[in-house]
Amino acid sequence: MDGNEKAQHHRDAFQIERVILFTDAVFAIAITLLVIEIKVPELEHPTESAVQSVLAHLIPKFVGFLLSFFIIAIYWMAHHRIFRFVRRLDNRLLWLNLVFLLSIVIMPFTTAYQSEYSLLRTPWIVYSINIAFTGLMQTALQRHLRNHRHQLVADPEHEHPDLDLARPLMSPLVFVSSIALAFVLPPIALRLIPAVAFPLLGFLNRRRYRRLDAAYRQKHGARVLA
Amino acid sequence: MDGNEKAQHHRDAFQIERVILFTDAVFAIAITLLVIEIKVPELEHPTESAVQSVLAHLIPKFVGFLLSFFIIAIYWMAHHRIFRFVRRLDNRLLWLNLVFLLSIVIMPFTTAYQSEYSLLRTPWIVYSINIAFTGLMQTALQRHLRNHRHQLVADPEHEHPDLDLARPLMSPLVFVSSIALAFVLPPIALRLIPAVAFPLLGFLNRRRYRRLDAAYRQKHGARVLA
Amino acid sequence: MDGNEKAQHHRDAFQIERVILFTDAVFAIAITLLVIEIKVPELEHPTESAVQSVLAHLIPKFVGFLLSFFIIAIYWMAHHRIFRFVRRLDNRLLWLNLVFLLSIVIMPFTTAYQSEYSLLRTPWIVYSINIAFTGLMQTALQRHLRNHRHQLVADPEHEHPDLDLARPLMSPLVFVSSIALAFVLPPIALRLIPAVAFPLLGFLNRRRYRRLDAAYRQKHGARVLA
Amino acid sequence: MDGNEKAQHHRDAFQIERVILFTDAVFAIAITLLVIEIKVPELEHPTESAVQSVLAHLIPKFVGFLLSFFIIAIYWMAHHRIFRFVRRLDNRLLWLNLVFLLSIVIMPFTTAYQSEYSLLRTPWIVYSINIAFTGLMQTALQRHLRNHRHQLVADPEHEHPDLDLARPLMSPLVFVSSIALAFVLPPIALRLIPAVAFPLLGFLNRRRYRRLDAAYRQKHGARVLA
Repeated sequence: MDGNEKAQHHRDAFQIERVILFTDAVFAIAITLLVIEIKVPELEHPTESAVQSVLAHLIPKFVGFLLSFFIIAIYWMAHHRIFRFVRRLDNRLLWLNLVFLLSIVIMPFTTAYQSEYSLLRTPWIVYSINIAFTGLMQTALQRHLRNHRHQLVADPEHEHPDLDLARPLMSPLVFVSSIALAFVLPPIALRLIPAVAFPLLGFLNRRRYRRLDAAYRQKHGARVLA
Repeated sequence: MDGNEKAQHHRDAFQIERVILFTDAVFAIAITLLVIEIKVPELEHPTESAVQSVLAHLIPKFVGFLLSFFIIAIYWMAHHRIFRFVRRLDNRLLWLNLVFLLSIVIMPFTTAYQSEYSLLRTPWIVYSINIAFTGLMQTALQRHLRNHRHQLVADPEHEHPDLDLARPLMSPLVFVSSIALAFVLPPIALRLIPAVAFPLLGFLNRRRYRRLDAAYRQKHGARVLA
Repeated sequence: MDGNEKAQHHRDAFQIERVILFTDAVFAIAITLLVIEIKVPELEHPTESAVQSVLAHLIPKFVGFLLSFFIIAIYWMAHHRIFRFVRRLDNRLLWLNLVFLLSIVIMPFTTAYQSEYSLLRTPWIVYSINIAFTGLMQTALQRHLRNHRHQLVADPEHEHPDLDLARPLMSPLVFVSSIALAFVLPPIALRLIPAVAFPLLGFLNRRRYRRLDAAYRQKHGARVLA
Repeated sequence: MDGNEKAQHHRDAFQIERVILFTDAVFAIAITLLVIEIKVPELEHPTESAVQSVLAHLIPKFVGFLLSFFIIAIYWMAHHRIFRFVRRLDNRLLWLNLVFLLSIVIMPFTTAYQSEYSLLRTPWIVYSINIAFTGLMQTALQRHLRNHRHQLVADPEHEHPDLDLARPLMSPLVFVSSIALAFVLPPIALRLIPAVAFPLLGFLNRRRYRRLDAAYRQKHGARVLA
C-alpha cells in the first residue's frame, strides 16, 4: 500500500467505525431508556408498608424491564459479533442496519405496553412481533454479509459460522410460536415460553455451531480467524 | 512526515473524529427520544378490546414517529457521506454543524406536536419549517466544504458529486411547497406530499448524480476516491 | 520507541480518548434532553387557533432552550479546544472533569426552572449560579493543565493562548453580575444581560487573544502548534 | 507481526474498544438521566416565595442526585481503571460487563425511589442493595481479569494492584452494613453512613494500595506499567 491507499484505507475503516459507534449509541440509549418506564408514584401518606406495596405493584414492570434488557443486550452482542467481519459498506447494509435499529428503538414502547398490561394477550403479541422483526432484520443483515458478490466481508470469512443464519432465526421462531399459542394458552403462560424455549434452542445451536466451526476450520486451515 | 508532523496529524484527525462522534451521539439520542413521545396510557379496566383501541389511537403517533425516524436517519446518512471528506476544521464549520444539530435536536418536539394534532394545518407547517431548515443547514455545510479557499477538503474532492448542492435542497423544496399548499389542501393531504415528491425527486437526483460522477471521474482520473 | 513503549503510548492515548468520548456523550445527552422539557399539551378541542396559542405559550421555553443549547454548545467547544493539549491524565484532572460535567448535567433542570418562571428573579439567580459554576470549573481545568509541574500538557503548549484563563472567566463575570443586578432590575431585563455583555466581552477577548498568540509564536517559533 | 497478524490485532483492539465505548455510553446516559427525576412543578400562582419553596422541597432529590452522580462517576472511573488492562475478550467478560451495566442502568430508578421517600427505611435498603450489587459485579469482573488462565490481561499485569479485590468490596461492605443498621438506626441516619465510612475505608485502602504497588514493582521491575 502506498500513502494514498493507506489514507483511503484509514478513511474506509473510520466510515465503518462511525456506523458501528452510532449503532452502539442507539443501543445504549434504548437499553437505558427502559428504566424510565418504571416510575416512582407519589404517595399522600408514605409509610413503610405503602412504599413496599409500591414496589410489589412494580414487579411486572421489573420483569418486563429485565426481559427487554437481556433481549437488547443479546442483539447488541450479536451486532458486535457479526460486524467485526465488515470490511466495506454499501447503501443496502446501511439501510438494513437502520431498520434493525428502528426495531430496537421501538422496544422501550412495546416493553412498557407489554408490562403495563401483563395479564392480556394483545400486548404480548405486539411485543413478540417487535422481537421477531428484530431477529428477521438480523437475519437479513447476515444474509447480506454472507453474499460473496457484495464483497463486504473478506474471503473466506463470509462462510464463518458466526454468520450462520440458524442463530438469528431462533428468536423469530420462538416469538412467532408464542403468538400462535396466544390464542390457546392463558396470557401469563405466554411469558414463560422464551424461558423454556431459549435454553433448549441454545443447546441445539451450540452443537450446530461446533459442527460448522470444525468444517470451516478444516476447509480454510490457517487462513481462519481465531 | 517526521515524528512531530505525525503527532500533529494524529491530533487533527482526532479533533475531527471528536466532532463526528459528538454529532453521532446527538443523532442517536434524538432518534431514540422520538419513541418516548408515544406513551402507554393507564386504563381503569384493561380488557383486550380496550388495549387494542389504545393502539388504534396511537396510530397517528406511530406514523409521525416513523416519518421522523427516517428523516433523521437520512440526515445522519448525509452527514456520514459528506463529513468523510473533511480534512481540517474551522470555527465556521463547527458552528454550522452545531446549528444543524440544533435543528435535529428540536425534531422530537415538532414530531410530537405534529402527530398530536395530525388533522390540523399549523403543526404541519411548524414541522415542515423544521425539516426545511435542517436541509438548508446541510446545504450551508456542503457549500462551506466545497469552497476551495477554506481548504477543509483535499483537492480535488471539493468537486466530488457527493457535495453537490442539488441533493440537500430537495427536502427544503418539498417541505416549503407543502407549506404553500397548506392553505389550499386539507391538512391530511399535506402528509402525503413527501410520499409522492421524494421518489420522483430521488429518481431525478440519481440521474443527475450519475452525470456529475462521470464528469468528475473523467476530469480527475485515477486520483479520484473510489 | 520500542514495541513496549509504543503499546504503552497507545494505551495512554486510548485512556485519554475514553475520557473525552464519555464527556462528549454526557454533553450530547444534556443538550438533547433540553428539548424534552418542552411538552406538547393535550387539548380537549384542538383547533388551529388553539394549537397556535399552545405555541405562543411555549415561547419562554423556546427562548430558555435556545439559550441553554448555545451555552452547552459553547462549553463543548471549549472542552474540544482545551483537551486537545492533554497528553497524560491524573486523578485530579478526572475529578475536575467530572465536576464540570455535573454542572452540565444539571442544566436541563435549571433551564426548565428558569423558563417555567421566566418573570421571576429566583429562577434566574439559580440558573446564573449554574452557568457561573460551569465557567469556574472550566477555569479550574485550564489552571490544572497550565501548571507545568503536572506535565499533563507537552512543553511549551501549557503556555498556549487557548489555555488563557481570561476567556473561561468571562461567563462567571457576566452571570455573577446578573445575580447582583437581580436585586435592582426587573427580572425580564436580567435575561438581556448576556445578550449585551457577551458580544462586548467577546470583542475584548479576541483582541487579547491575538496579542497572546503573537507573543506565544514569537517566543516558541517553529515548535508551535499550528 | 506480518500484515495478517496486524489486521487481526487491530480488529481485536477495535472489538475491545467497542465494548468500552458502549459501556461509556450507558454510563453517560444513566448519569444524565438522574436529573430528569427532578421535575419542576407547575404553580397556579408563581411568586418568588412560591418558587423558593419549590426548591426547598426538592432538596432531598438534589441530595439523592448528587450521591448517585458521584457513585456512578466512581464506578465509571473504576471501569476506566480496570479495563485498560484488557487485551482479549471472552463471552464471560461480556456478560459480566452487561450485568454490571444492568446494575448501573437501574440506578436512576432506585435513586428516585430513595429520594422520593427519604424519611423511610425500605427505599434506602433497596438503594443499598443496588449499590452493593454493583460493587459485587465489579469484584466479579476483576476476579475474572485476574485469573491467569483466561489470558485476558497480559502477564504480569493480572497481578497489578489496580485489580486488587479489596477496593471493589468496600462499597458492598458499607451498604450491606447500612442495611443491617436500617433496623436499628433512624432512616435519616442511614444516609450518613457512606459519608462516614468511605473516607475511613479510603484511607485504609490507600495504605494497602501503596504496599501492594511497592511489592508489585519490586517483583516485576522494569516490565511494569507506569
